[in-house]
Amino acid sequence: MQMTLAQLARHLNAELSGDGAITVRGIGPLEAVTAEQVTFVSDLQRIKDIAKTNACALIVSEFVQDDKAQLKVKNVSAAMIETINLFFPEPKAEGGIDPTAKISEKASIGEDVSIGPNAVIEDGVEIAASSFIGAGCFIGKNTKIGKSCRIDHNVVIYHGCEIGSFVIIQANSTIGGTGFGYAPVDGMPKLIPHVGNVVLDDYVEIGANCCVDRAKFGRTHIGAGTKMDNLVQIGHNVQIGKCCLIVSGVGIGGSAKVGNGVVLAGQVAVSDHVTLGDGVMAGAKSLVIHDVVAGTGVFGIPAIGKNEALRVWTASRKLPKVIEQLRQLERRLKNLEAKNDKK
Amino acid sequence: MQMTLAQLARHLNAELSGDGAITVRGIGPLEAVTAEQVTFVSDLQRIKDIAKTNACALIVSEFVQDDKAQLKVKNVSAAMIETINLFFPEPKAEGGIDPTAKISEKASIGEDVSIGPNAVIEDGVEIAASSFIGAGCFIGKNTKIGKSCRIDHNVVIYHGCEIGSFVIIQANSTIGGTGFGYAPVDGMPKLIPHVGNVVLDDYVEIGANCCVDRAKFGRTHIGAGTKMDNLVQIGHNVQIGKCCLIVSGVGIGGSAKVGNGVVLAGQVAVSDHVTLGDGVMAGAKSLVIHDVVAGTGVFGIPAIGKNEALRVWTASRKLPKVIEQLRQLERRLKNLEAKNDKK
Amino acid sequence: MQMTLAQLARHLNAELSGDGAITVRGIGPLEAVTAEQVTFVSDLQRIKDIAKTNACALIVSEFVQDDKAQLKVKNVSAAMIETINLFFPEPKAEGGIDPTAKISEKASIGEDVSIGPNAVIEDGVEIAASSFIGAGCFIGKNTKIGKSCRIDHNVVIYHGCEIGSFVIIQANSTIGGTGFGYAPVDGMPKLIPHVGNVVLDDYVEIGANCCVDRAKFGRTHIGAGTKMDNLVQIGHNVQIGKCCLIVSGVGIGGSAKVGNGVVLAGQVAVSDHVTLGDGVMAGAKSLVIHDVVAGTGVFGIPAIGKNEALRVWTASRKLPKVIEQLRQLERRLKNLEAKNDKK
Repeated sequence: MQMTLAQLARHLNAELSGDGAITVRGIGPLEAVTAEQVTFVSDLQRIKDIAKTNACALIVSEFVQDDKAQLKVKNVSAAMIETINLFFPEPKAEGGIDPTAKISEKASIGEDVSIGPNAVIEDGVEIAASSFIGAGCFIGKNTKIGKSCRIDHNVVIYHGCEIGSFVIIQANSTIGGTGFGYAPVDGMPKLIPHVGNVVLDDYVEIGANCCVDRAKFGRTHIGAGTKMDNLVQIGHNVQIGKCCLIVSGVGIGGSAKVGNGVVLAGQVAVSDHVTLGDGVMAGAKSLVIHDVVAGTGVFGIPAIGKNEALRVWTASRKLPKVIEQLRQLERRLKNLEAKNDKK
Repeated sequence: MQMTLAQLARHLNAELSGDGAITVRGIGPLEAVTAEQVTFVSDLQRIKDIAKTNACALIVSEFVQDDKAQLKVKNVSAAMIETINLFFPEPKAEGGIDPTAKISEKASIGEDVSIGPNAVIEDGVEIAASSFIGAGCFIGKNTKIGKSCRIDHNVVIYHGCEIGSFVIIQANSTIGGTGFGYAPVDGMPKLIPHVGNVVLDDYVEIGANCCVDRAKFGRTHIGAGTKMDNLVQIGHNVQIGKCCLIVSGVGIGGSAKVGNGVVLAGQVAVSDHVTLGDGVMAGAKSLVIHDVVAGTGVFGIPAIGKNEALRVWTASRKLPKVIEQLRQLERRLKNLEAKNDKK
Repeated sequence: MQMTLAQLARHLNAELSGDGAITVRGIGPLEAVTAEQVTFVSDLQRIKDIAKTNACALIVSEFVQDDKAQLKVKNVSAAMIETINLFFPEPKAEGGIDPTAKISEKASIGEDVSIGPNAVIEDGVEIAASSFIGAGCFIGKNTKIGKSCRIDHNVVIYHGCEIGSFVIIQANSTIGGTGFGYAPVDGMPKLIPHVGNVVLDDYVEIGANCCVDRAKFGRTHIGAGTKMDNLVQIGHNVQIGKCCLIVSGVGIGGSAKVGNGVVLAGQVAVSDHVTLGDGVMAGAKSLVIHDVVAGTGVFGIPAIGKNEALRVWTASRKLPKVIEQLRQLERRLKNLEAKNDKK
């Protein structure tokens, strides 16, 4: 795959500065790119690294002071994604339905759906057009999957769930398992039946080895465009808004409510029944046990306002010295008291 | 499915107050229930919400001041579970043994066992009556599974493990993997063979995507009635008592001993070789590095007594101010010392 | 299986002290061993427990004061591993290629390779001699696997990855999934295509239910001899050195660089782009947000030098008392100031 820089400019709807006849054979990051590849400056702080790059041209949002050819675009990230897709097209999954897949006659499979070897599709399942179901997946009774989804290998989706369109679920994830709800009966914890389901809206993307539990009653719901890293846990009846970013190792407790555009960094835990407003950001490893007002950042175990948390943390490092100073002060005060008593 | 309230009362062995002729068509929680469903008040603090519920009748442990029909039972949770099971019976798994399952001729399969598509059952495996093995499961050589178990899809149980009766293991969990035991040999960590196994007693329930490692020697053992959420890690040779509750993201290090009725909240870590007495409760995200006496609560990183941990945490938020106060005190003391010196 | 102690001594190249005619029927740990088994003293602190052991003989690095027969070896751990392998040989996987495995005609399968039931091997895959691929595994296009590897059941390795020789990957792990890389496009997070891969060097061992993400560009790389426990997350473009030990629940953020011989205890989180020098040790649950110099230990959230972290933690427990002392000091100072004013 190759094209001229001018052709790439047209493809990206970019303004070209420099030699349009240059041959482009790929794209790579500033620090690891060959002379026949373009690169991109999505972070303006990286402009200082431009001098060192081998790239034949730069994708930028503003023309920069440099001899290199440049393509000016509105959104560098979008142009980068488009260029990657041009030069590195996704390996096409083999189309069609593998003969070893076990598909119920009572399931409804849309046009151009791919179903991998040994996948199991139970009664009443509906899969809309152009979706991909990987090898070894299990899709339980009456679960609905929208169009153009990618459900990777060995994913298990239990019965009765509703998956939107353009959803990605990576390998070995489990959707719709029974939640962790027990009640003491005869001195033993007894499982509360979970008769709700999981609803994933359009463009939800879920990493590998994640768990999203079904609701006790009603639904566990993840809003459109929310993205989840690997090894994330979503408890029963959790409600998550749109376009959240949930990093690896996060656990969200039962019935918690998460607003739109919330960012939970790695290994954050949100207690059950907690509400996080829109745009909340929780720092890595935070334990969020109280509701958080929209637009604020929190950090710590338990989590408090981010700025306060950092002040407390900075102060805590002075604590051994503080204790020593207190002791000295006590000694000096004692001396002074003794003097005073003598007078 | 529908019945009269009087019929439901008889079924639950409940005392009825109000109109027994009411038609009941389901059950739901206080805040999300229709006029043809009953609801339940398992938490007395929720009595204030009764006024707002649409339910046609209440399941209660004591009759409450309200116009609604009521069913008085001994254990609200037990009655709730029974009512859910009445109105929302579990979707029945297809019975029988799928022809694509690969079952060794040297395995012993009990009556009414269900084995899903593509499951693999190796030599010497024994599965007792009425157990369910999901699609894509792997059950290694000589592993024994009791009666009425539910082993969900794509679960892997390695060789030689012993699973009791009425055990549930949810999708994508791994039981009996080799533990993390290495010894330095020729300057490289070398895996210590793990020749022990995993023993799960009756009524153990394990969530999705969990790992329970086999013992080096002897056994990793989980006592009857202990329940585990998703994404939990149990190290080699861990010994866990009865009826513990282990929330998502917990990791228990090798050879740790956990008593009966222990509660480990989300993302707790227990160090290897630590002993937790009966009834210990560890707060979310705690790191338990020392033995904990029975009946006590701990919290923090590293964990200390819960009350002390909360006192320390509360005090820590005052720390920036404490440092400022100390500085002021120092100034005032200096002034006083100067005055005294002059005299 | 049985042998005389003299035979075992020869096998281990050990110096024998005591009766070589003793019959040995196995090996076990000091505290749980029968009179026909040998035991081992790998930790010199355990010498005090020798008196209590039932073992017929001891494997030691130095002869100890005891009546028991002893085998003196250079490396007790190595001798222990060898003895375990003698008495408890690994259950042999059934050799050969299961007829239900779906293997592309364009894949290249070496001699003595085992492939389990329902495994899927796509076009262009190469598997070298004597490797084992478990039931239900998925190996994506053009992925290469070296010799004598053990890829356990239901593991998913996406396309284009490079797995060295003598590598172990335990059940339900996911290698080469797309990383968590999003860029805002039209007000929504849009997935950045990941066109890099994962490279595991020789003797890498990965536990169950782990995730190692593929690189955006280039490769995610794990060096020779590095070992990983269960439920570990390795982000895109992470570079890990040789012979590291990564305990369960660890998460390493994108593009982080980890040196050789690094030890990350349970549930550690390493932020993206952080560099850890050779031999760094991070205590359990640490959050490492800054680069760490080679050979140092860190602990805490965020992590600081281990000794400082413990001093701060010890001091923090005195904080409630410190605040009380400060109040008393303030009172005494006020008294003194009042007296001084009067004079």
